[in-house]
Amino acid sequence: MTLLKAAIIGGGNIADNNHIPALIQLTEQVKLVAVCSRDLTKARALADKHDIAHAFDSTSEMYHQCTPDLVIICTPNNLHYPQTMEALNHNCHVFCEKPPAISAQNARDMSTLAAQKGLTLAYNFQLRQTSEWSLLTRCQSDGLLGNIYHIKAHFLRRRGIPGWGYFTDKGMQGGGALMDLGVHVLDLALCALGYPAPDQVIGNTYDFIGKTGGKGLMGAWNPEAFGVEDAAMAYLTFPNKASIMLSASFALNTQVDKDRNLEIFGSKGGVKLFPFSLHTELAGELADVQFPYLEEVDIQLKNTSAFLDACQGKPSNVCTAEQGAILQEIVERIYQSAEK
Amino acid sequence: MTLLKAAIIGGGNIADNNHIPALIQLTEQVKLVAVCSRDLTKARALADKHDIAHAFDSTSEMYHQCTPDLVIICTPNNLHYPQTMEALNHNCHVFCEKPPAISAQNARDMSTLAAQKGLTLAYNFQLRQTSEWSLLTRCQSDGLLGNIYHIKAHFLRRRGIPGWGYFTDKGMQGGGALMDLGVHVLDLALCALGYPAPDQVIGNTYDFIGKTGGKGLMGAWNPEAFGVEDAAMAYLTFPNKASIMLSASFALNTQVDKDRNLEIFGSKGGVKLFPFSLHTELAGELADVQFPYLEEVDIQLKNTSAFLDACQGKPSNVCTAEQGAILQEIVERIYQSAEK
Amino acid sequence: MTLLKAAIIGGGNIADNNHIPALIQLTEQVKLVAVCSRDLTKARALADKHDIAHAFDSTSEMYHQCTPDLVIICTPNNLHYPQTMEALNHNCHVFCEKPPAISAQNARDMSTLAAQKGLTLAYNFQLRQTSEWSLLTRCQSDGLLGNIYHIKAHFLRRRGIPGWGYFTDKGMQGGGALMDLGVHVLDLALCALGYPAPDQVIGNTYDFIGKTGGKGLMGAWNPEAFGVEDAAMAYLTFPNKASIMLSASFALNTQVDKDRNLEIFGSKGGVKLFPFSLHTELAGELADVQFPYLEEVDIQLKNTSAFLDACQGKPSNVCTAEQGAILQEIVERIYQSAEK
Amino acid sequence: MTLLKAAIIGGGNIADNNHIPALIQLTEQVKLVAVCSRDLTKARALADKHDIAHAFDSTSEMYHQCTPDLVIICTPNNLHYPQTMEALNHNCHVFCEKPPAISAQNARDMSTLAAQKGLTLAYNFQLRQTSEWSLLTRCQSDGLLGNIYHIKAHFLRRRGIPGWGYFTDKGMQGGGALMDLGVHVLDLALCALGYPAPDQVIGNTYDFIGKTGGKGLMGAWNPEAFGVEDAAMAYLTFPNKASIMLSASFALNTQVDKDRNLEIFGSKGGVKLFPFSLHTELAGELADVQFPYLEEVDIQLKNTSAFLDACQGKPSNVCTAEQGAILQEIVERIYQSAEK
Amino acid sequence: MTLLKAAIIGGGNIADNNHIPALIQLTEQVKLVAVCSRDLTKARALADKHDIAHAFDSTSEMYHQCTPDLVIICTPNNLHYPQTMEALNHNCHVFCEKPPAISAQNARDMSTLAAQKGLTLAYNFQLRQTSEWSLLTRCQSDGLLGNIYHIKAHFLRRRGIPGWGYFTDKGMQGGGALMDLGVHVLDLALCALGYPAPDQVIGNTYDFIGKTGGKGLMGAWNPEAFGVEDAAMAYLTFPNKASIMLSASFALNTQVDKDRNLEIFGSKGGVKLFPFSLHTELAGELADVQFPYLEEVDIQLKNTSAFLDACQGKPSNVCTAEQGAILQEIVERIYQSAEK
Amino acid sequence: MTLLKAAIIGGGNIADNNHIPALIQLTEQVKLVAVCSRDLTKARALADKHDIAHAFDSTSEMYHQCTPDLVIICTPNNLHYPQTMEALNHNCHVFCEKPPAISAQNARDMSTLAAQKGLTLAYNFQLRQTSEWSLLTRCQSDGLLGNIYHIKAHFLRRRGIPGWGYFTDKGMQGGGALMDLGVHVLDLALCALGYPAPDQVIGNTYDFIGKTGGKGLMGAWNPEAFGVEDAAMAYLTFPNKASIMLSASFALNTQVDKDRNLEIFGSKGGVKLFPFSLHTELAGELADVQFPYLEEVDIQLKNTSAFLDACQGKPSNVCTAEQGAILQEIVERIYQSAEK
Repeated sequence: MTLLKAAIIGGGNIADNNHIPALIQLTEQVKLVAVCSRDLTKARALADKHDIAHAFDSTSEMYHQCTPDLVIICTPNNLHYPQTMEALNHNCHVFCEKPPAISAQNARDMSTLAAQKGLTLAYNFQLRQTSEWSLLTRCQSDGLLGNIYHIKAHFLRRRGIPGWGYFTDKGMQGGGALMDLGVHVLDLALCALGYPAPDQVIGNTYDFIGKTGGKGLMGAWNPEAFGVEDAAMAYLTFPNKASIMLSASFALNTQVDKDRNLEIFGSKGGVKLFPFSLHTELAGELADVQFPYLEEVDIQLKNTSAFLDACQGKPSNVCTAEQGAILQEIVERIYQSAEK
Repeated sequence: MTLLKAAIIGGGNIADNNHIPALIQLTEQVKLVAVCSRDLTKARALADKHDIAHAFDSTSEMYHQCTPDLVIICTPNNLHYPQTMEALNHNCHVFCEKPPAISAQNARDMSTLAAQKGLTLAYNFQLRQTSEWSLLTRCQSDGLLGNIYHIKAHFLRRRGIPGWGYFTDKGMQGGGALMDLGVHVLDLALCALGYPAPDQVIGNTYDFIGKTGGKGLMGAWNPEAFGVEDAAMAYLTFPNKASIMLSASFALNTQVDKDRNLEIFGSKGGVKLFPFSLHTELAGELADVQFPYLEEVDIQLKNTSAFLDACQGKPSNVCTAEQGAILQEIVERIYQSAEK
Repeated sequence: MTLLKAAIIGGGNIADNNHIPALIQLTEQVKLVAVCSRDLTKARALADKHDIAHAFDSTSEMYHQCTPDLVIICTPNNLHYPQTMEALNHNCHVFCEKPPAISAQNARDMSTLAAQKGLTLAYNFQLRQTSEWSLLTRCQSDGLLGNIYHIKAHFLRRRGIPGWGYFTDKGMQGGGALMDLGVHVLDLALCALGYPAPDQVIGNTYDFIGKTGGKGLMGAWNPEAFGVEDAAMAYLTFPNKASIMLSASFALNTQVDKDRNLEIFGSKGGVKLFPFSLHTELAGELADVQFPYLEEVDIQLKNTSAFLDACQGKPSNVCTAEQGAILQEIVERIYQSAEK
Repeated sequence: MTLLKAAIIGGGNIADNNHIPALIQLTEQVKLVAVCSRDLTKARALADKHDIAHAFDSTSEMYHQCTPDLVIICTPNNLHYPQTMEALNHNCHVFCEKPPAISAQNARDMSTLAAQKGLTLAYNFQLRQTSEWSLLTRCQSDGLLGNIYHIKAHFLRRRGIPGWGYFTDKGMQGGGALMDLGVHVLDLALCALGYPAPDQVIGNTYDFIGKTGGKGLMGAWNPEAFGVEDAAMAYLTFPNKASIMLSASFALNTQVDKDRNLEIFGSKGGVKLFPFSLHTELAGELADVQFPYLEEVDIQLKNTSAFLDACQGKPSNVCTAEQGAILQEIVERIYQSAEK
Repeated sequence: MTLLKAAIIGGGNIADNNHIPALIQLTEQVKLVAVCSRDLTKARALADKHDIAHAFDSTSEMYHQCTPDLVIICTPNNLHYPQTMEALNHNCHVFCEKPPAISAQNARDMSTLAAQKGLTLAYNFQLRQTSEWSLLTRCQSDGLLGNIYHIKAHFLRRRGIPGWGYFTDKGMQGGGALMDLGVHVLDLALCALGYPAPDQVIGNTYDFIGKTGGKGLMGAWNPEAFGVEDAAMAYLTFPNKASIMLSASFALNTQVDKDRNLEIFGSKGGVKLFPFSLHTELAGELADVQFPYLEEVDIQLKNTSAFLDACQGKPSNVCTAEQGAILQEIVERIYQSAEK
Repeated sequence: MTLLKAAIIGGGNIADNNHIPALIQLTEQVKLVAVCSRDLTKARALADKHDIAHAFDSTSEMYHQCTPDLVIICTPNNLHYPQTMEALNHNCHVFCEKPPAISAQNARDMSTLAAQKGLTLAYNFQLRQTSEWSLLTRCQSDGLLGNIYHIKAHFLRRRGIPGWGYFTDKGMQGGGALMDLGVHVLDLALCALGYPAPDQVIGNTYDFIGKTGGKGLMGAWNPEAFGVEDAAMAYLTFPNKASIMLSASFALNTQVDKDRNLEIFGSKGGVKLFPFSLHTELAGELADVQFPYLEEVDIQLKNTSAFLDACQGKPSNVCTAEQGAILQEIVERIYQSAEK
């Protein structure tokens, strides 16, 4: 099999620590040939560090010189749309960081173009690759959960406003805790329900702590430049009457430092995801099931591999362009509801 | 001071175990002179057991013979409205069990008549009298919480569908887990916000487990006669952008047997109610505060006492007729939303 | 239905605290009419305390006057055989305390006579009525355990040599820890395997601590009068290659005060009985299952009821005369092996 | 003192990770000059990695060229016998991996030849060097345990069938869980009793899980090639009436992942080995003694050192050839009992 | 044996709940014939409740009418001296509540008179009767502790200023936390050292919290009437260089509600008293010994019994008049040191 | 800003692991140019390892060649005085290891000379730089503690007599546990009180375990060469009636391996330092406050930096020469008291 030729766009931490190491391990499927950053020095440094042939500060030159089969996009959120469209127009498959975009319309357009071009566009929601999520799907398909009708999903930090990057810049990121954290657990909740579009979406966003300032646990942030929500709450209902309660925060006066979890309630069994426990009836009694030997897995490696499988037409559980558009529309409806 | 003359309407457990013992202890304020039940034998047995002068199976005869100053109503939910109206028309103060009624209109009418008559109508939400709630209000007034903007309130049972009484009869109770359990924590959440009317209400109700049957932890129930919701989920937003997430269940595939709690998030501090913990910043650091010596109190005794204070025009934190009407309307809007 | 007429033989604690209260509650099936003890004062006191019509110090007079349908035998072990034979010869069903007898031949004879007479003879192994054992049998019949091939059964006390009664008198009790404690868990282990007779039995008994003396946790014992084993260890193999490791002690230098448990290993799942946990594979992962809401039951009441069911020809899980003979033979073979 | 010249036979993990590092640290007593493997590449790689002078794929050539004073044998079990005999015949001391051999006769022959030659033959049961075992022997010699009369010894894995090597190959290994794991705890139990030969041995072996397959926690195994026992249970009695209960498993439906322990019961005190606790009477009360500061030791280093001491005629607690023969005979008798 | 005739002086809780029930159980040694209180109604009520023949409001009349052999004094501290002197002068043995008196001189005079009269005077330090203290003395006499050289003794309450009685009245009680609580643990510490008189005593007393007020955990106290110390700290050295650190508090900003303990450090072993743990070396290793099966005992019953033994000239571990005088002098020296 | 030129005197662990790494990180303030040790080889090795320009075995030569601005003294305690005096006389600031000296007079002289010279002399009590101590001072200045009146300070090891260095040599170290460990917590306790001189000091020292020998947890020590105290206990009172209980041990028969802590009691709140907890009243209830997210800091780095700040006339919380003199006098008075 010929190797897929890959280029990476974006020279930050997530390229350096997540995507490049994953690509480098998948030597039987892909060869990373170029790294692109607005800052050529940064691009060169990454290329040197990881032994990548080319470094660019212009994507068009990169496409011209390297003609990659696929690109990985790990730039600020507001660049996901233009860079994905450019890549698709260069006939590249695209593996784009989450969230898909900063507007629902952008995400729909990205999905439409990928479909027209017959290319794979996927988003990097890597929690899908945890052992816990894999077990959840097996419990579901083995009938241990019955009909899933309610999900509580949350990704809460107590004082976890990032003190670096653009996380508090509304223009570049499109939002705060919901855009950065909430989308991860929302994606899983939607998967559990079969990724339907909701019929009703209601929500609120807050910025009391972010704008006031306080003790930071992920570096210090500047309350005066804080332009996004520090917490978002939402409720979604679906045509089949299922519902999702969603909570996300960068900052909230809660006990736990970092709390990311889903509770999934079905007619036969319920699951708390981290650590995984199943609550059901067995042999006529109420039973709590623990699975103490779940493996730790490299979720980025597995998700990149799933993307490559998708590019090659193989079955894959990576987040598709269509799913990304559904999710982005929900995010937008939450923000709209919060504005009312 | 002359004693208030009281009659109790309803001869079930809640009269026997909660209201009568409370009234009997408050000998300096009230004298319980009559007990009324559709079943005269039951009424007589209660009167004998607690040394009450009169027993009736007719409220009109009771009013005629005893002319009470106040009545306690602890009958099935669908009787709250007619019996309260009758009592007010007999110029009695009324202490009515929760929920106020089975429709919002009824609750509004009850409130209106009480106001017209200048009488006290109050509802028995006795969790307001816990040490935890008392401490919450002091934290609030001492400014430890700042502006409260989000509350998660839940009252969940795993398999706690009552195997006795009328709890699964829609006609008599008007609903299930929301009417019986959810209203308790909803009342507290509304108190924390100042009892505003919400601008948006959305919710869902479910009956998968109730209708299927299973292991019961509060007696066995009959799935074929199960006519109410076994779980209700809702989201409320308020004019000041505050929000409440509400969850109530008789049956849910969750880990915990019984889980009743509120998490109250304010701009300066957050509180988890049971056991009470405060999460805030102190001396420039994130601080978790425990209060290990809260007293256990007899919450029914304190709530009955609060009702009597209200009757006498004293300050009281009992649930008022106006608050009851607001709460009942929210319940109705949740059921309506769930029907859509 | 006509009530069964019952008499109880033996006036000690186990009559007073276990059997009589159970019989008294089962008013729809049985009427206890007489109590017999060698000590007439004791018999009378019991009869008065529990409102029983007759008291005797002679069983023959009791049979003559009362003609019971069934008798309960709760005397020292060496009397089980003669009193059971006498009862059967008076055409009474017999519910005999454990162990069945002090020799295997006695137990076989008791079983044979009961069969000849067409009467129910049963032994009071009441651990069969625990919620845990009931759940074990349901797990077994639901196929959750597969083929059971090894059982570790133990009933260990650290310093629990009883300081009262005849427990250390070899002549009256026939043995020590094995006769008194070991038989309980042996009975359960045999049930799990279908009550087969073993092909090989090997064992050892010890009396170091009993004969030396020391700190007693169940009263003080006299080391000089200590005539039984303080610990017994055994290994049993069965024709289908299953095996049992059995340990029982009145006194052993182990950490735990009292430790009574079974571990049951099957090809699909294994169970630890107290508290009940199931260890198996589910959804392709190793799973540990807890059942946190097992009911506490009155095991003596349930076992007496099971005996009465057996008397009336109904299905019953009480220990039968045949099972008792198998168990007693195992006990005897352990003691014989220990003597070698 | 002149250094002993050593050669190692076997090029697998145990040579690489255990024996060679130990020998290399003992620079004052021994010099490792050669490594032998059927696979010369492997031997060369090991020799290079550890800076050893010679690599061979033929033991005879090794003996010819290097004339070692001692050899370490860490090959599959079926090679222990021929390679030990060859080494002894080359007048080498032998430090052989456990178990001694795959038949009792082999082990006896190995012991006999070593005695005839006046050479040290020892087996690598390194648990003898744990701090816990050292403390046990001091407790024993200080009289804290009295007369030891019963030992429960187990080495259980839940799903620990090795997914590598020859562990499931009956021909090469001679057996499964008993040969690989059980012998470790059996050796300790025998030490505590003075290494007597038992008078009775009874046991069973099972292979339900191994032959069915399932989730592996030590790699995946092939159920179709599974030729050994996955579990072995046995009971041993000794001329002084002491007894041992022995349990070993590669796979068993038990709660714990890996559980290796001994409980040693004496007339004055009892010990649970891991973590070490002593249960006895002190100052007239039942006492539990913990030793929280036991040192972690490099047990391979200490055991290799003990072997070298034995070669030089110094006192040593290494497992001797005679002990190895006793142990191997017990293993064989367990397998024979299981076959019956 | 003729029964000792006893009278009790003081009609409060400690008479009602501690001394009278103990005396009543010791029917073979003592007969309680009279109860004395300044308030005759109280005395009569106690006499009726406990079936005591006589009630008085005058001790002289009591001595006149009843001529007791012994009296129990449980009145406020300032009455211990006059009432003990009166009793001794009536030739009665005296069992006096702690502390002995409110001055050292008083305690010395009480001791002197008792010696002159040849009567038993003892103080009710009932912690000496705990199983823990009994075990401590056995450990000491078995040589497990070696030479005791330092003791930390404390009896701390966080907010345990009694809201009843005279505990905060300096005139009646002579002091606060030290007089009421500290003396208990001081008595034990002195016992462990052989009850020597110290050569140096230094200490401090505080009343910040008592005088400021706050949340009470033993009722509410009046800060304005608070006349004693809420905390006392002291250091004692003895001629043999041993030392005691003593801490007592009614109120202190510490974590624990109530914390009463001693740590006793000897050259061979150290003991923490509650729960009892011994820290020493055993078999060449550092060992921690727990005694998990210490009995709960009725310490008042045992201490009253010990007093009766002393009256009858039997060996007894009750606190003697001489010891009481030593202790009272230490207390006085602490208060004097604090005044400097 | 020009860099301060630094030299280090002493070539042991504390130079190598603590001071040199700290100095090397503070590149903007200081340049380490020389290392001095009596053993030139050691000095050269350190200089090479850390890339320091010069190595000396003579301080005078070092001063001559290098003319440092400051020196760090980390030699045995008895050299602190002469080397500090020499350094001050060379017009160097001095950062001296704790304790200041081996006599109070020496410490006073050191302080006097530094003052005369206008130089900074400071001692390395680096616990002042822990996050816990920093939080304590903020709690104090925020008024959360009120008036601090009692402190319990201890630094206890169970068997932590160092098996290396000169720790048990009275001549070189001046003392044992108090000099090495106790001074750390004494320094903090004094800080909390404002560093007053006490009016009374009493104490005891012991050496039972040190002179007897036993199991060592920090290497093995030689009981015959043990010349210092293994434990020291003391009590200090201050003019404002505040008090300190101080305990320090190298060896004590206590449960915990290493226990270093302070309890600080104020009129409004109390603090346990490790882990930090605050005990006070909040909102009218007793409250326990935890601070779960305190940062781990490099306390040596922060203390060295604080010393450099002091050299430059900036605010600094380093231990001053005057404070060191007060502390050393207390230590001396404890030893004197123990001798009496």
